[in-house]
Amino acid sequence: MLPPDPLSLQTALLLVEIAAIAAFALSGLMEAAHKRLDVVGALAVAGLAAFGGGTLRDVLLDRRPFFWVEHSGYVWFLLGLGLITMLWMRRRHVRPTRRAIVWPDTLGLGLFTATGTQLGLQHGMPPLIAVLMGVITAVMGGVLRDIVCNEIPSAFRDHRPYALCAFAGGWALVAARSLGADEAQALAAGATLTVLLRSAALWGRWRVPAWPAD
Amino acid sequence: MLPPDPLSLQTALLLVEIAAIAAFALSGLMEAAHKRLDVVGALAVAGLAAFGGGTLRDVLLDRRPFFWVEHSGYVWFLLGLGLITMLWMRRRHVRPTRRAIVWPDTLGLGLFTATGTQLGLQHGMPPLIAVLMGVITAVMGGVLRDIVCNEIPSAFRDHRPYALCAFAGGWALVAARSLGADEAQALAAGATLTVLLRSAALWGRWRVPAWPAD
Amino acid sequence: MLPPDPLSLQTALLLVEIAAIAAFALSGLMEAAHKRLDVVGALAVAGLAAFGGGTLRDVLLDRRPFFWVEHSGYVWFLLGLGLITMLWMRRRHVRPTRRAIVWPDTLGLGLFTATGTQLGLQHGMPPLIAVLMGVITAVMGGVLRDIVCNEIPSAFRDHRPYALCAFAGGWALVAARSLGADEAQALAAGATLTVLLRSAALWGRWRVPAWPAD
Repeated sequence: MLPPDPLSLQTALLLVEIAAIAAFALSGLMEAAHKRLDVVGALAVAGLAAFGGGTLRDVLLDRRPFFWVEHSGYVWFLLGLGLITMLWMRRRHVRPTRRAIVWPDTLGLGLFTATGTQLGLQHGMPPLIAVLMGVITAVMGGVLRDIVCNEIPSAFRDHRPYALCAFAGGWALVAARSLGADEAQALAAGATLTVLLRSAALWGRWRVPAWPAD
Repeated sequence: MLPPDPLSLQTALLLVEIAAIAAFALSGLMEAAHKRLDVVGALAVAGLAAFGGGTLRDVLLDRRPFFWVEHSGYVWFLLGLGLITMLWMRRRHVRPTRRAIVWPDTLGLGLFTATGTQLGLQHGMPPLIAVLMGVITAVMGGVLRDIVCNEIPSAFRDHRPYALCAFAGGWALVAARSLGADEAQALAAGATLTVLLRSAALWGRWRVPAWPAD
Repeated sequence: MLPPDPLSLQTALLLVEIAAIAAFALSGLMEAAHKRLDVVGALAVAGLAAFGGGTLRDVLLDRRPFFWVEHSGYVWFLLGLGLITMLWMRRRHVRPTRRAIVWPDTLGLGLFTATGTQLGLQHGMPPLIAVLMGVITAVMGGVLRDIVCNEIPSAFRDHRPYALCAFAGGWALVAARSLGADEAQALAAGATLTVLLRSAALWGRWRVPAWPAD
């Protein structure tokens, strides 16, 4: 088998990243619509959902510049996406949009978990902390979105495996590295396991065990 | 025309800064009174409202010492203002206080937007990010105040131009700099446009367009 | 009198620290149970309650590595404690658990206030800011716990002296240092006064004066 063309691989990764950021931002825009925020609130919540997790990770790792500072094109993209969504999205579009963003959101979960864990390892974090950095990258944007919208974060109470898939995927990356895989292989292992687990969880309607009733 | 005396200009700026910090702190104290917080909560919310925006900006820019660490006299001022307010303010004072702080709040919006944008540029941020730093400086204190008081931030849902005025003022500063203005002139341009826009918005009861109804 | 054996003193301090972290984590777990969070939410809230205050202090002081990164065994401890609690704790255990954690929580208030204030002084903060760092270390974990659980922080509205005891204890440490005490003596002074004040407040049911009614 030929190795994949690195250039087309990079293009594919960039497309996944753009799709994932759009999915995260749209989750914020729909939450903002549900709460009747104004345009400022909608854009702020979309930005938090899309960039909040990576920003929190970078603050914890004391890493600069932030992703969205280095690539400020993404902020323009988000502002444009937000304004277009506010102009055209009506209530009847919410349900199909929610369905449409499930898969890019799942890809984003895998991608951000893997890159976050990787960055944790590169900054010399112990394995558990590196994995938590991956989970924070992938999950905390949605958590901040829900806090600002005055809701208990859905990642903390919906009993669906989301952060748990990221946690498992992060450990897959750590394991791959310690078994001698190079960075790209380990990233692929972490992202793939995260995406597979989340897909299985969605498909099989897996539930995180509930707190005992009494 | 003679240039303005730099010493009296500095005094004027200092007075504006003190008035603005007092206005931001009072917005927190009134929110705390509304929510029946105790003295600890009232002082914490006042501090968040007054210093939260600048602190968040400095964390994002990785800038130390914070404003309130370098000038810890402001923290004493805030503690004193909070205690005096709690001793003397009664429910009948809330409405006139809200009216009285509108103008120092507007001056603070201009001042903090301009200094935040300026600091962003000085730290090498791209223009859009520098402007966002100005908006964060001016607006996020109130956002944190509302989050702690378990409200959706009013800056995100009251449909009044506030952050948008800061956004426009930040761009005015950036434009002035790129047209060759020096730092003081650009600061003045950014702060002035912010204050004028906010004043017009208050005076004309401008509304940010609402999210379409269905 | 013989000086205390430094080794057994260190062991005692370590035991206090473990008990305090367990108490802070349990406060998060019980809040999570009350809000019917899932396992991810329960562990996240427990982690915020236990490590959130120290982490916020370290971000403000720009200090790395975090306590829980340097000693990642504490994170494993917290994960284990959380899972065991979720498996075994039933509703009838909540009230005795709340009573049982009052004293380790009080010891933690003293310990974290003193170490936080000490770190503030070591980083060159002015006295007031150093004391606030101590208060933040001891109190902000519980504040973040309550914000995530969509409650106004109890430290800000329960009218019980908690942060105020930390504030007084922090000043005791600063005073001891400026009177020539060494670091260990000052730590002991700050922690002891905090614990004594909080114990007296609990025992005597002291109340912070309420905001005047009208």
